[in-house]
Amino acid sequence: MKIHFKSSLISFFIAVYSLFECLYCQQEKTPNIIIIFTDDLGYGDLGIQGHPSIQTPYIDQMAREGQRWTNFYVAANVCTPSRAALLTGRLPIRSGTDTNEGARVFFPNSAGGLPPEEITIAEILKKKGYKTAAIGKWHLGHLPEFLPTNQGFDSYFGIPYSNDMNPTTNLTHAEANADPKIEYFNVPLMRNEEIIERPAQQNTITKRYTEEAQKFIVENKENPFFIYLAHNMPHVPLFASDDFLGTSKRGLYGDVVEELDWSVGEVLKTVKEYDLEKNTMVVFTSDNGPWTVLNVNGGSPGPLYGAKATSYEGGMRVPAIFWWPGKIEPDVIMDIGSTLDLLPTISKISGASLSQDRNYDGYDLSATLIENKKSSREEMFYYHGTNVFAARKGDYKLYFYENNPNGYPEKLGKLDELKLFNIQKDPSERFNIIEEFPEVVKEIKKLLKEHQKNVHPGENQMIKKI
Amino acid sequence: MKIHFKSSLISFFIAVYSLFECLYCQQEKTPNIIIIFTDDLGYGDLGIQGHPSIQTPYIDQMAREGQRWTNFYVAANVCTPSRAALLTGRLPIRSGTDTNEGARVFFPNSAGGLPPEEITIAEILKKKGYKTAAIGKWHLGHLPEFLPTNQGFDSYFGIPYSNDMNPTTNLTHAEANADPKIEYFNVPLMRNEEIIERPAQQNTITKRYTEEAQKFIVENKENPFFIYLAHNMPHVPLFASDDFLGTSKRGLYGDVVEELDWSVGEVLKTVKEYDLEKNTMVVFTSDNGPWTVLNVNGGSPGPLYGAKATSYEGGMRVPAIFWWPGKIEPDVIMDIGSTLDLLPTISKISGASLSQDRNYDGYDLSATLIENKKSSREEMFYYHGTNVFAARKGDYKLYFYENNPNGYPEKLGKLDELKLFNIQKDPSERFNIIEEFPEVVKEIKKLLKEHQKNVHPGENQMIKKI
Repeated sequence: MKIHFKSSLISFFIAVYSLFECLYCQQEKTPNIIIIFTDDLGYGDLGIQGHPSIQTPYIDQMAREGQRWTNFYVAANVCTPSRAALLTGRLPIRSGTDTNEGARVFFPNSAGGLPPEEITIAEILKKKGYKTAAIGKWHLGHLPEFLPTNQGFDSYFGIPYSNDMNPTTNLTHAEANADPKIEYFNVPLMRNEEIIERPAQQNTITKRYTEEAQKFIVENKENPFFIYLAHNMPHVPLFASDDFLGTSKRGLYGDVVEELDWSVGEVLKTVKEYDLEKNTMVVFTSDNGPWTVLNVNGGSPGPLYGAKATSYEGGMRVPAIFWWPGKIEPDVIMDIGSTLDLLPTISKISGASLSQDRNYDGYDLSATLIENKKSSREEMFYYHGTNVFAARKGDYKLYFYENNPNGYPEKLGKLDELKLFNIQKDPSERFNIIEEFPEVVKEIKKLLKEHQKNVHPGENQMIKKI
Repeated sequence: MKIHFKSSLISFFIAVYSLFECLYCQQEKTPNIIIIFTDDLGYGDLGIQGHPSIQTPYIDQMAREGQRWTNFYVAANVCTPSRAALLTGRLPIRSGTDTNEGARVFFPNSAGGLPPEEITIAEILKKKGYKTAAIGKWHLGHLPEFLPTNQGFDSYFGIPYSNDMNPTTNLTHAEANADPKIEYFNVPLMRNEEIIERPAQQNTITKRYTEEAQKFIVENKENPFFIYLAHNMPHVPLFASDDFLGTSKRGLYGDVVEELDWSVGEVLKTVKEYDLEKNTMVVFTSDNGPWTVLNVNGGSPGPLYGAKATSYEGGMRVPAIFWWPGKIEPDVIMDIGSTLDLLPTISKISGASLSQDRNYDGYDLSATLIENKKSSREEMFYYHGTNVFAARKGDYKLYFYENNPNGYPEKLGKLDELKLFNIQKDPSERFNIIEEFPEVVKEIKKLLKEHQKNVHPGENQMIKKI
């Protein structure tokens, strides 16, 4: 009898303990993080962002279930520096990944990369026991020492730079991309540090990246995990799988974006299938504005002015959605945010600590995401190379430079007379109001001066060649 | 006993009859119709259409619950002819409500109006026993014979023309509208055929139109009813009530649009409160593109090219939402539709018959709305005055004229070399592809020729002055 009673009591305590432990684990479990990053997708290229002939029902639903930010910026208007900033939470100038001299992105003959001493989101999460995967475009150095597996990722599957590189054709870039063929672009597909396919069969690349992400989710459903899913699309050359080719009213560009939309739907479906949605934050955003000089093969900035390779709004403001059911309430946020903020935000919500030996340029946005508070970011510096093209404080954006609004050919020039815009009242940047707000001009100039005191250029990685 | 049994039997049959009658009435009851029509709201001015700093949660929700059309057109790029077309299902040229000579909208010194022999939606619904109300801007003639009460409406409450007319100030139009005051615009507010307030207290006009609509819904909840709720806003001068003034990040224009959004929410709330939503179709759209020359006091065409008073897409493509829970499934439609189609569509769903003595230019869209079929409209003629500025067939739009893309000052000129655009692939109309598609050009020219055979200009109403 006594033993029996005791064992019942033990069972009871085990049951109670399990209950509490489980409640505790539900509450405190470090969340999974998935960043879905598209390439050259414009501010206006989604249904939810107002595109009239591209259908993106899955991303639209993600936006309705999550928080959509309408004033969200990348830290650079082209690929390489934008990615460096997202992964490190630091301005590209600090890591030497943007330049005023020549090409601003890595090419197959580049010898540089994101310096290994930079600390990526993957590296801070590794310390917290996360499993980490980089899937897709890297573009932060393709020599072994710069690859994702040397920057905190357990695995890598993808094309290490832009999908239009290593051309094998004598056609011009515009011609080759107007009617693209796989064999025109001899880009490698890598698994970790090995090339496994060349040229990458780009027509199935979105599909394969998606499957890779789904597989990783399933394999790591018991761990906290981090997936950096950086699609090569819709950067030219545009390739869609047979399921999507010729199906969009927007033409090939629309086919490609609609396949990306499908991909987002698949990833979220897998997260839900394994009951991970309450414990997984998914972020969707893009690396810079649309490459509008590519005719109908480039995207749309929507109502914004400018394009990829410019620091006008259309070049640096991107779609941004944060999804985490039960944790992030559905909302539309018109405060300022940036990909620079992802590292500090993820650090906060995962409990990972930041290294104290360096300056960060990001803000922790978790109070806005989770507690409905004002964004902690109130300013933005629009770098172009190592120059600050413009600076924003609150609703006001002050321009120090001008450029070709289509980005290419670049016509960067210092303005003799600065220009000021209220980009909430005038999001298309049509009305220069510098005469009306001398105080604002003074304030932004001061802000910039303060900012620049703490910014020291890192060793230029972009000019190093093999 | 016998009598008792008989009376029980009668009660039983009455009960059964009532049950069936009620089921029948539920199924076959003619639906209520509410058309919410805004003034100068641009394609890009709603959250759901991609605006980054205007919040429209109620309209966005209406769109998510209903069918949103992304290729929906008005029949004219300015106010008066656009309204004539919506209410009659006929091109303005037929009713003499657009012109190539002078002002294209009615002014306080106009002696013309929509001819009484034109048959409006209200008139066809009156014959089916509907109670009908016009609330808001009329702009189809302000002399007694042209007022809503002589065009099929049981009642009228509103400002009979644009809210910027009858200026009392020596300021320029731009100056008066940059910092508007109620007393600058001596416009009348009418109840039926009487002026009840002058100048109309425009700061509460959106609120009062809304309340009037809600009151009419409640009073007519047992009848089929038709409400034509044509807001004066966001046409300049911009006025918002104290509840909205200074609340939007987009400034005064945003305050005004956000109050319109509130208004839509209120109307739908009342429809739901009285359990009418399964039997009420609500349409939301706008009369023409945004008045962009008004600086930040004009709206945004989003990604589209052009503005009010142009026949570019930004001038004539408008937001359009059809809402009828349980009948119209949530969807985004990229086929072509037009305000011209509202009369035939409403005629179909209400069972009202069309007069056989005249040509209509609209298509019945009910099969798309209710049965998920392809739109019956496959073309659009972009009239400007009595000229056809451009014509669309399928995805292609052929231009015969050009204009100042901002609308004002008008610079209408016949093109020496026509231009062709694929406006699904290229919604911003950036790439003229006329050289590539000679067959399409031929086909559209033929279509236009056929169309014009059956179009005969009505007596010009616009040139008649008091």
